[in-house]
Amino acid sequence: MRDAYHDELDAITDALVELSSLVSSAMGRATAAVLDADLQLAESVIAGDAVIDDRYHEIEERAFELLARQQPVATDLRILVTSLRMVADIERAGDLALHVAKVARRRYPLSAIPAELRSTILEMGQIAERIMVKAGQVVARRDVALAAELETDDDRMDDLHRQLFTTILGDGWRGGVEAAIDITLVGRYYERFADHAVSVARRVVYLVTGERVVAG
Amino acid sequence: MRDAYHDELDAITDALVELSSLVSSAMGRATAAVLDADLQLAESVIAGDAVIDDRYHEIEERAFELLARQQPVATDLRILVTSLRMVADIERAGDLALHVAKVARRRYPLSAIPAELRSTILEMGQIAERIMVKAGQVVARRDVALAAELETDDDRMDDLHRQLFTTILGDGWRGGVEAAIDITLVGRYYERFADHAVSVARRVVYLVTGERVVAG
Repeated sequence: MRDAYHDELDAITDALVELSSLVSSAMGRATAAVLDADLQLAESVIAGDAVIDDRYHEIEERAFELLARQQPVATDLRILVTSLRMVADIERAGDLALHVAKVARRRYPLSAIPAELRSTILEMGQIAERIMVKAGQVVARRDVALAAELETDDDRMDDLHRQLFTTILGDGWRGGVEAAIDITLVGRYYERFADHAVSVARRVVYLVTGERVVAG
Repeated sequence: MRDAYHDELDAITDALVELSSLVSSAMGRATAAVLDADLQLAESVIAGDAVIDDRYHEIEERAFELLARQQPVATDLRILVTSLRMVADIERAGDLALHVAKVARRRYPLSAIPAELRSTILEMGQIAERIMVKAGQVVARRDVALAAELETDDDRMDDLHRQLFTTILGDGWRGGVEAAIDITLVGRYYERFADHAVSVARRVVYLVTGERVVAG
């Protein structure tokens, strides 16, 4: 029975990793959609969110069933409950990719991102894509060293987020209020997306080391 | 043993309800701080977030301990795991009150809210305060009828959130980019705050009826 249990636990972990990869890809496509005013791409991210939600509910149900059926204790219990929380973080990050795609759709055929901020948003999008893939790897391999890397990526994301405000609040800003609002929202979506990835990684660290990573 | 178990489960529920009341009060004070440029009030909300976080971790630990020690099944298990998720929603709502207070502090001695939007933000703040209190009552009494009320409150919050954008994007807007950014962020904090309260209520509904409330 214990082996069947661990097989199922591994399957849940695999599903989590797969979900993080779906969400990473959604944010990558949302970034391209918002930068290039690509409506089709935006629509694909928006439609794809239902798939992410379905996977999320599936993983939840499997974890609940396993909890109820096998009554795990100690470490196994913590792993399973932690999985339930990580899947919620990852699903929520998926919502943020959806929000970025919706901004792209709302502004179409214009781009929501003015030329002077393209490189900043591009980098934020790349960090987002990468940090969620890394979160998946941290989960898959219980890789505490890699978890530390996510903190660095997140610091960079925060720097870029601050740069957005410096630009839209600067004297040189000619984009007007509407574009400033889009940038404010989109910036917040990326920043929160990275936070969720970091949260996943921290949960793994806590599981492995018993130590809580204090927000930096 | 089962009775000691249910006593402890009730104590966790009580702690959850108390936390929701702390968070509701934090948002009420944050609203006053941001409307009246009240620095002292803003600082009290900012300092109080540590208390909210401590309570959150305490509730988590108690739930984990109970899970591990008592190995609940079926409904009891679902209640406990659901509590773990509700406490995360409530703590996150507390962070959003903190964010509103930080906007107030950043703009001090000015108010971040221009005169024309005071009544809108005031109402958003009142809904936020109320909806979190109701979420606590839904948890305390497993009150599915009251849970439906939160959906209505949340719809009103969404309307007000849209009104903010109509104002700052309108021809009459003279507040400039900086104020528009503050309004965008603050608006988003209130809207998300209400979402977390609704999420708490929906989890209770799912627990009681087995039916998921589909986002409206």
